[in-house]
Amino acid sequence: MHHHPWQDTSRPAEERAADLLSRMTLEEKLAQLSSIWPGSEAEGEDVAPFQHEVSEAVDLDGLLPHGLGQITRPFGTAPVEPGEGARALAAFQKKVAAANRFGIPALAHEECLTGFTAWQATIFPTPLAWGATFDPALVREMAAAIGASMRSVGIHQGLSPVLDVVRDPRWGRTEESIGEDPYLVGTVATAYVAGLESSGIVATLKHFAGYSASRGGRNHAPVSIGPRELADVILPPFEMALREGGARSVMHAYNDIDGVPAAANPDLLTGLLREEWGFDGTVVADYFGISFLERNHRVADSPARAGALALAAGVDVELPSVRCYGEPLLKAVRSGEVPEELVDRAVLRVLRQKCELGLLDPDWTQSSPVSEGPIDLDPPAMRALARRVAEESVVLLDNREGVLPLHPTARIAVVGPYANEQSAMLGCYTFPRHVGVEHPELPVGVEIPTLLDALGAELPGAALTGDPGDADVVVAVLGDRSGLFGRGTSGEGCDAEDLTLPDGQAAFLDELLESTDRPVVLVLLTGRPYALGRWEGRLAATVQAFFPGEEGGPAVAGVLTGRVNPSGRLPVSVPRGNGGQPWTYLAPPLGLKGAASNIDPTPLYPFGHGLSYTTFAWEAAGADSDTVPTDGGTGVRLTVRNTGERAGTEVVQLYLHDPVARTVQPVSRLIGYARVTLEPGQAAEVVFDFHADLTSYTLRPGQRIVEPGAVELRLAASSADVRHTVPLTLTGPERTVGHDRRMSCGTEVRVLAS
Amino acid sequence: MHHHPWQDTSRPAEERAADLLSRMTLEEKLAQLSSIWPGSEAEGEDVAPFQHEVSEAVDLDGLLPHGLGQITRPFGTAPVEPGEGARALAAFQKKVAAANRFGIPALAHEECLTGFTAWQATIFPTPLAWGATFDPALVREMAAAIGASMRSVGIHQGLSPVLDVVRDPRWGRTEESIGEDPYLVGTVATAYVAGLESSGIVATLKHFAGYSASRGGRNHAPVSIGPRELADVILPPFEMALREGGARSVMHAYNDIDGVPAAANPDLLTGLLREEWGFDGTVVADYFGISFLERNHRVADSPARAGALALAAGVDVELPSVRCYGEPLLKAVRSGEVPEELVDRAVLRVLRQKCELGLLDPDWTQSSPVSEGPIDLDPPAMRALARRVAEESVVLLDNREGVLPLHPTARIAVVGPYANEQSAMLGCYTFPRHVGVEHPELPVGVEIPTLLDALGAELPGAALTGDPGDADVVVAVLGDRSGLFGRGTSGEGCDAEDLTLPDGQAAFLDELLESTDRPVVLVLLTGRPYALGRWEGRLAATVQAFFPGEEGGPAVAGVLTGRVNPSGRLPVSVPRGNGGQPWTYLAPPLGLKGAASNIDPTPLYPFGHGLSYTTFAWEAAGADSDTVPTDGGTGVRLTVRNTGERAGTEVVQLYLHDPVARTVQPVSRLIGYARVTLEPGQAAEVVFDFHADLTSYTLRPGQRIVEPGAVELRLAASSADVRHTVPLTLTGPERTVGHDRRMSCGTEVRVLAS
Repeated sequence: MHHHPWQDTSRPAEERAADLLSRMTLEEKLAQLSSIWPGSEAEGEDVAPFQHEVSEAVDLDGLLPHGLGQITRPFGTAPVEPGEGARALAAFQKKVAAANRFGIPALAHEECLTGFTAWQATIFPTPLAWGATFDPALVREMAAAIGASMRSVGIHQGLSPVLDVVRDPRWGRTEESIGEDPYLVGTVATAYVAGLESSGIVATLKHFAGYSASRGGRNHAPVSIGPRELADVILPPFEMALREGGARSVMHAYNDIDGVPAAANPDLLTGLLREEWGFDGTVVADYFGISFLERNHRVADSPARAGALALAAGVDVELPSVRCYGEPLLKAVRSGEVPEELVDRAVLRVLRQKCELGLLDPDWTQSSPVSEGPIDLDPPAMRALARRVAEESVVLLDNREGVLPLHPTARIAVVGPYANEQSAMLGCYTFPRHVGVEHPELPVGVEIPTLLDALGAELPGAALTGDPGDADVVVAVLGDRSGLFGRGTSGEGCDAEDLTLPDGQAAFLDELLESTDRPVVLVLLTGRPYALGRWEGRLAATVQAFFPGEEGGPAVAGVLTGRVNPSGRLPVSVPRGNGGQPWTYLAPPLGLKGAASNIDPTPLYPFGHGLSYTTFAWEAAGADSDTVPTDGGTGVRLTVRNTGERAGTEVVQLYLHDPVARTVQPVSRLIGYARVTLEPGQAAEVVFDFHADLTSYTLRPGQRIVEPGAVELRLAASSADVRHTVPLTLTGPERTVGHDRRMSCGTEVRVLAS
Repeated sequence: MHHHPWQDTSRPAEERAADLLSRMTLEEKLAQLSSIWPGSEAEGEDVAPFQHEVSEAVDLDGLLPHGLGQITRPFGTAPVEPGEGARALAAFQKKVAAANRFGIPALAHEECLTGFTAWQATIFPTPLAWGATFDPALVREMAAAIGASMRSVGIHQGLSPVLDVVRDPRWGRTEESIGEDPYLVGTVATAYVAGLESSGIVATLKHFAGYSASRGGRNHAPVSIGPRELADVILPPFEMALREGGARSVMHAYNDIDGVPAAANPDLLTGLLREEWGFDGTVVADYFGISFLERNHRVADSPARAGALALAAGVDVELPSVRCYGEPLLKAVRSGEVPEELVDRAVLRVLRQKCELGLLDPDWTQSSPVSEGPIDLDPPAMRALARRVAEESVVLLDNREGVLPLHPTARIAVVGPYANEQSAMLGCYTFPRHVGVEHPELPVGVEIPTLLDALGAELPGAALTGDPGDADVVVAVLGDRSGLFGRGTSGEGCDAEDLTLPDGQAAFLDELLESTDRPVVLVLLTGRPYALGRWEGRLAATVQAFFPGEEGGPAVAGVLTGRVNPSGRLPVSVPRGNGGQPWTYLAPPLGLKGAASNIDPTPLYPFGHGLSYTTFAWEAAGADSDTVPTDGGTGVRLTVRNTGERAGTEVVQLYLHDPVARTVQPVSRLIGYARVTLEPGQAAEVVFDFHADLTSYTLRPGQRIVEPGAVELRLAASSADVRHTVPLTLTGPERTVGHDRRMSCGTEVRVLAS
């Protein structure tokens, strides 16, 4: 085989990419910024309602001789047996490579939010459930396994994770988010990124930025937010996931912020991301997002102008297929409207990434070996991992009457629309909900026990019934139907006007409680928090799970029966009332209950809340030093002791309270946490490696400071349940900190000899 | 009488103030920045729940020898007969003047939002009702009359109007606002300011700025907004009311924007207001607002620091009484922490204003003559004016079955909690609701016919009953109770979690509609719009009034009976659903109904909507020129013809649609309007003096441009009912415009010979 200079694997990727770029025609360059979406014109409902509106048929025979940047969703568009899919993709890649004079294949991307979004692949819990685990190590393990699956069938890039901090839980994509606190989102997402990248898959941080703060929680609506809130709440997870997770791609958000669409915002995509943060990977478009500049935001009057704006801002690749970056951009460059240097800048990034992925190597097919025969994307090890994530994510909100765990020989009425319903376990980015709904004839692809199935299996001695009349206890299973664009009660394009339990389930629960004098256990399988204040004090117990995936039934059943001692903690506040949104716990004094408004936004169950079947004592809290230089740190210690009868896990949360600052600060915000698993009687010392950088905040746009003075660290079991306060004084000069500041708080958990 | 140099009325105010300042001790200077609130410690509930929390008793004997800046609410704190009040105020002013070595009295300020907030004074409709009139000339007349009343009893400054653009109608102070469109708010508020100032009263623009955009509509909650939205939506009414209305005072807002409290924001209070806009009047604190910097925003750790921040930002006078600006600021200046120049800057503004008001003149008592005997603050001419405003403000939302006007001999059931209730006419800044509620033994002070009273008077031949069972038609009168801080369903500190009709009235209406087959006319007497979609198509007619004041009963009755042909137009959208807030019509395509969200925020009745008992033809629309230079204008013409059987008023609205812009723009926004009153068969030509400046928008913070290209002007009967479109092309170079741009669109209405 003849080796071209750009195929020389001994040279740095940067050089190889530049060499290749220098040989390309403009058509060939633009082809590398393009994608095609095979099969997206198939029968059935569209994945997105605007799919056809802004998609035009791509002339494959015209395009391929110039090359091809990406292939969109070869597995997530229509059901295909994974082995067949892998072979079809490999064959197509050969065709792509053979058609262009450099022999370059395309980069194949897929969705992988709750696992690889492919038929028959393991379905993991939704990101809100990852947040509930407070367990980045486990999330990293999950993501590494997901990535390995994807690699095995020829995928290079995964369009995950979602780093949008929940600002209004009415937003349908709340289920795809990790939580309402940027530190929790940042640490969990960074773990996901590190895991996915460890398997060789390019992780894609999305949606950059501000998408979750849309007005009224309506998908794609304008975002009203100022630069400080953006810098202190929205951006830190991205910064952390790039720096500590090593993500190699970023996807722009659909929304505008204060009138400027993200896809047309050079300050965001170039000034901040590239110049300040030093990112050198690719920025990809959210699907149709470049066309939206013309069709929806109306900041462009043609596809060419939309493409020019996005390219200049820093969007490198148009997805899901080419519309603005192909012919229109070609003409714009030819006519001098768009400098070719901007095209070169984007192509260089694409080629460098392809080089790093081995796609410029002479033997590139070896980087994606093709198996023969069927491929099992849901092997027992993956199911076990899905189970672990699910089990750690279930949150016991209340157990006032001690009705849980259920007695193994009880008569249990299991009622409600989701008691025996597989879909209640599945978020909207799972294959069955995302694509499978268009193929009702198709088997769901993986085994998904319902909660009723799982309870029956866990409690063979119990009598399960659908009739509350003869039962010792009633388990009411309510939840969401996830779906896309109005097809569900949660998910992308399935926003809520308020936080009333959907589909009449509030009335169902009212009637159930009216009609029975038995204790009622509420189990929620949802994609967002719902208002529960209406039933305060009337439920015997409440269990919250967030679309817990294919092993969600056994996981929730395990918590109900006591096989699993619950350890999940709320990644989002559960409000009392249906209205009053937006609200999150990240509020200054005037955002909380106060004298100036009759409205008390205090949630029923606060961020970080979750109960266990055992009890813990929080002892011996303190800091190694009560003064800390503004560029220094101290250990913050606490001993946690399991004072109950059974093994369990406590989640120790560290919050910062900054009593006086130069801009208005939230009363408290999370800056560290640790899961502590203990046998009965066992104790562990938790040491937080606190650093003054963790107190930094944005003084004015672009300036983040650590300010000397008093702060209070709060060791807490939830954002509202502070167990110990540790006063510290930051000493020395005010410091301006940048992208190199400490963003995460190391923790050490050391089990003590008893 | 000895004349001091500062008393020389032949010298400019600036010189006299500077002369006086140069003679003052630091104590005397600070006294001029202080106010006292006589009677605020009286028995009864506080006006504000934080009144005592941040008020401390002022040592009057210690303060007065140094002077006194202001007197807080001598009439609006406790009920006093106006003549007695005037004499008591004059006597106190003599004491103030006699106690300081310069003989300077205090400036007395009062509330005057819905009329002078004094016992027995005329109660006008609430600002939402002013907005509904679309009649700045009438609002100006009203404000001039209010001002004259205040002058007659010795008041110098009125703490009105409210220029907050409604961004979330859940906010309790929506009733105090004029509407959801900045052009409507700006033009109506400017008229109010011009009227009040014409009577010699200092108008106070509040709340500067951003207060209405608080998170979740909760009073005082943080405001998430960016600089463009601030510049294009929130600030223009202030700019217009200063420039075109001549307001001489501005009150800072309570809230923070993006972490910076308005009271501590020098960019806002000095950079924008003084340096860019050239304002030279006074900036006063909202009550307790300086203390809030310490107590609530936590950007200061002491009263002195709060005072220093506010003074440096540009707050000149602490209200309602002195806490941070007295002794604490004295010490801070003495110790060198606060430069005395900052004190001088504020005192000079205060003294100049006192000079302009005649309070530095040797014969200053003549500027506020004291009457003997009682004073009538509600004479017939004022009542007639209140009636006119009320009548023009009633909005006929729907009349599908032609049931209105009511037949003069009909059997009419008048039901609902507000059918025979005076309080339904009164906003929360009326004396009875603001202060009178603490004095239940006190007569309300002015005559306020209820709707039932007024209907009986209007329809002597009809049979009015409370029983829907025997009636020809049912009039259901629902509404709000206004009040302060949780004492009502609308008003300051009476926010709503959603837009469900309050106090169980939704259920009342449900049951009424279930129980009768008679046509039901819904009359709403509210302080905000409520969701009415639940009853769409089931009501025979719907009439919306916004706390229409002491003559509101006859005004609404006049519309119901047909004596008044309704001409009010909605200043706020009436939504379909209870949830989904915030929303206003000022939304780009992605903020409206679209493919990306299942939520359709389209209101049931759009901004600008309102029906008449006659019909109008909209004819012969067009522009004098179809191209307009970016620094020029053109006449835009329309002929309106009354094609019905009776006289009536049409409100012609002019909206701008900018199809493509460099930042995301609302699909349409109001840039002009005209009331056109016509006899049957009569026609009038309406000419809008359109100028390209009206198309300007904020490109980046601080830069406002007029962009060449195509725009579309829409002649419309509401924001959703476009009758004619007028395409225009703006030609020439892009222009950057500033504070001298054209902000309002002149209109001419010329009745045509028939």
